[in-house]
Amino acid sequence: VNIITLTTDFGNGDIYVGVMKGVILSINPNATIVDITHDISPHNIKEGAFLLNDFYRYFPKGSIHLVVVDPGVGSERKGILIESDGYFFVGPDNGIFTYPIKKGLKKIIELSNKSYYLNEISSTFHGRDIFAPVAAHLSLGIEPDKFGNEIKEYKILNFDPEISENGINGEIIHIDKFGNLITDIKKEFMVNKDFEILIKDIKIDNISESYFEGKEKEILAIFGSSGWLELSVNMGNAADIIDAKVGDRVLVRWKK
Amino acid sequence: VNIITLTTDFGNGDIYVGVMKGVILSINPNATIVDITHDISPHNIKEGAFLLNDFYRYFPKGSIHLVVVDPGVGSERKGILIESDGYFFVGPDNGIFTYPIKKGLKKIIELSNKSYYLNEISSTFHGRDIFAPVAAHLSLGIEPDKFGNEIKEYKILNFDPEISENGINGEIIHIDKFGNLITDIKKEFMVNKDFEILIKDIKIDNISESYFEGKEKEILAIFGSSGWLELSVNMGNAADIIDAKVGDRVLVRWKK
Amino acid sequence: VNIITLTTDFGNGDIYVGVMKGVILSINPNATIVDITHDISPHNIKEGAFLLNDFYRYFPKGSIHLVVVDPGVGSERKGILIESDGYFFVGPDNGIFTYPIKKGLKKIIELSNKSYYLNEISSTFHGRDIFAPVAAHLSLGIEPDKFGNEIKEYKILNFDPEISENGINGEIIHIDKFGNLITDIKKEFMVNKDFEILIKDIKIDNISESYFEGKEKEILAIFGSSGWLELSVNMGNAADIIDAKVGDRVLVRWKK
Repeated sequence: VNIITLTTDFGNGDIYVGVMKGVILSINPNATIVDITHDISPHNIKEGAFLLNDFYRYFPKGSIHLVVVDPGVGSERKGILIESDGYFFVGPDNGIFTYPIKKGLKKIIELSNKSYYLNEISSTFHGRDIFAPVAAHLSLGIEPDKFGNEIKEYKILNFDPEISENGINGEIIHIDKFGNLITDIKKEFMVNKDFEILIKDIKIDNISESYFEGKEKEILAIFGSSGWLELSVNMGNAADIIDAKVGDRVLVRWKK
Repeated sequence: VNIITLTTDFGNGDIYVGVMKGVILSINPNATIVDITHDISPHNIKEGAFLLNDFYRYFPKGSIHLVVVDPGVGSERKGILIESDGYFFVGPDNGIFTYPIKKGLKKIIELSNKSYYLNEISSTFHGRDIFAPVAAHLSLGIEPDKFGNEIKEYKILNFDPEISENGINGEIIHIDKFGNLITDIKKEFMVNKDFEILIKDIKIDNISESYFEGKEKEILAIFGSSGWLELSVNMGNAADIIDAKVGDRVLVRWKK
Repeated sequence: VNIITLTTDFGNGDIYVGVMKGVILSINPNATIVDITHDISPHNIKEGAFLLNDFYRYFPKGSIHLVVVDPGVGSERKGILIESDGYFFVGPDNGIFTYPIKKGLKKIIELSNKSYYLNEISSTFHGRDIFAPVAAHLSLGIEPDKFGNEIKEYKILNFDPEISENGINGEIIHIDKFGNLITDIKKEFMVNKDFEILIKDIKIDNISESYFEGKEKEILAIFGSSGWLELSVNMGNAADIIDAKVGDRVLVRWKK
C-alpha cells in the first residue's frame, strides 16, 4: 500500500499542502496522496484528534496518515511515527494521535534520523521538512525502526466528557457544513434509556433514526454516521437556528 | 477506465469526502479519484444538476460520476446506478441526474444488492455506505446488472425556464468565485435576434464575445464556457455590484 | 514524470477545475494531477507569481506547472509553454511566470499549434480549451517545439520592493489561514544588521527564530518557510490583531 492521507489546519488557500505533495512525489512518485481536510480549526488538537478518529479506519490497512496540527512547531515537541491498529501515523507528538494510540499500539518511533529529513530544516514548517519526507520514505517500504528510536513516553490526551451518576457533561466538538453539531458524546456513554439532552434552552428526550423525522426547524438528536451524538435539523442548519458554536456545553441528564 | 469523480455538498472542512475516498481505495486501490467540487449549496439539487451537466462530458467515456446531494437520505428514496451518454452515474434518485438521463439513457439500476454495500448501513451517510462502495466495485469491472434490478420509473426534473412568446423567464442558478451570474438560459433558447435582458433595474441588449469588451463596472451578457447565459463584469464582481443572489429572476424580452 | 500541478484563481466551489482535470485525463489517463491552490485572489497576478515561486521547486524535475490567473482571457495576450529551471510551465503570458523565467530560462514557446487545443475554443476559458490539453499532451512526452514557435518577447514583471539607502519599502503580498502576513521582503534584501520594521504603528527590531518565542498577541518578525519576511503572532492571528490586509505597506528602516 502506498496511500498517504493528508490532514492539516493549513487551509486550501495556501501552497503549504501543495509543497508537501511535491516533497512526497519527489521521493515516491507512485504515492497515492489523498486530501482529507485542511480546514481543521487553527491549532485545534482536539478537533483534529476527533476527525482523525472518524476517518482513519476507512482506509486500507497499512495506509499512512500524515496529520499536521502543530502549534508547537519550533519548540521541543517531538516528531513521531506511530504503528497502531494496522496503520501508520506521522506528525507531531502533541496528543493528536490519542485515539489510534489507544486502539492497539504497536510502537512509537521518535523521528530523530535526519537522513530522512529535507536537507534544510525550518523552524516553522516541519510538515514539509520532516513529516512529508518521512511519510514518503515510509511509503517506499523503509522500516519504521530506521527513522529513529522507539519511545515509551508520548503525549495522549483525555477528550472524553465527564460522566457522573447524574448524566454526561459534553460539548460541541465540530460543526459541519450543514450546521450539524457534533458532540463528544458516544453512543456507548448513553447507558441509561431514560434521559434528556439539554443544549441552550432546548430539551430533547429521544434519539431519531434519521434527519427525515424532524419537523421544520426542530432540533433532533441523532447518532451521526461515526457514532457521536449530533444535534441536527431536517433540511435546516442547527448551528444557525440555536446560534451554537464549538465548545458549547451539551448535557445529558438521566431521568429516574 | 477506473476514474471516479466526486461531487457533493459536503464541503471541504469535514472528513465525509475523505471517508468516501478511503472506502473506494479499500475496494479498488487503483481507482483514480477526482474531486470536482464539494461546495454545492446544501441540498440544492438544481444547482448540482446544472453543474453536473456542465462537467461530466469532459471526462473519458466510461468514467463513473458519483454525486451526493441527498436531502432525502434516510427516507424511501432509492439509490441508483445510471448508464447514459457513455458514462456511469451513481447516487440518489432525486432528479440530480436529470440531464445525463435525458441525453441518451441506456439503463437505470436500483442499488438493491446489499453485498456491494458496506456491512453496516447508517441512515445518514449513504455516500459512504452505499454509493462509494458501489462506484468502487463498478470501477473494478463488475457488471451494472449485478447491483440490482433495472427500473423504469425514476425521478427527472424540469429545470428549464418558462419560455413564452414574449420572452424567457429565467433565474440565476449559480454564482462563481468571480461573481459571474450563471443563469438557466441556454443559447438555443435565444431564438429571437432582438431582445433585451433584464436583471434588477439593468437592461442589456447585446451579447458580448469576451469579458474584455466591458467598461469598468459595466454588466455584460455573455455565453459562458458551458453555453449558459452569464452576466459578468470585466475585472469586477457582478454579484457584488448589483447585489445578486442565486434565485434572482433574469428576464429576456423579445423586441418586435 | 507525468505530474501536472494546477494553480488557479477559480475557487473550489465551481466545476472549472474539475473540467480541466477531465480534459487532462481524457488525453493522458495516467497523468498525476496535483491541486496546489485554487484560491489565488481573483486576477491577482502578483500573488500568483509569489506563490508559484514558493512551491514549484519542491516537485520532481520535469513536472508541469499549469497556472491560470488570467484576467486577459479573450484579449490578445498569448498562451505560452516555458521550459526553465528544469520544469515546464503552461499558462498565459502575463507575468505570472516571472520568477521561474528569471531562474534559468531555456525557451518559451507560443501555443499557436491548434491541433493541441480542444476542438472548440471559447473566449472565456482557455484553461480548459488550451492550457489543460497542452499540458496533457506535454505529459505524454510530446516535444515542446511541436506546440508552436519559440518567442523572444514575453512579459516579465518586477515584483521586488523598492530598496534605498534608508531601507526597504515593502508590502503584504499574501495572508495565510493563520493570519500570518507574508511580505515581498526577502532575507537577502536585509543587508543591514541594525533595522526596524514598521507596520501600521508597530516597530519590531529583531527577527525571531520561531513563532514560539512570542508573547501573547505580540507581533513577531520571522523569515517564513520560503524565505520571505513574515509578521506573525504565536498562537494568534496577526492579520486580525493589527487589522492588516494584502497591499498594506511594510517598511524596513536601517539604523545608523
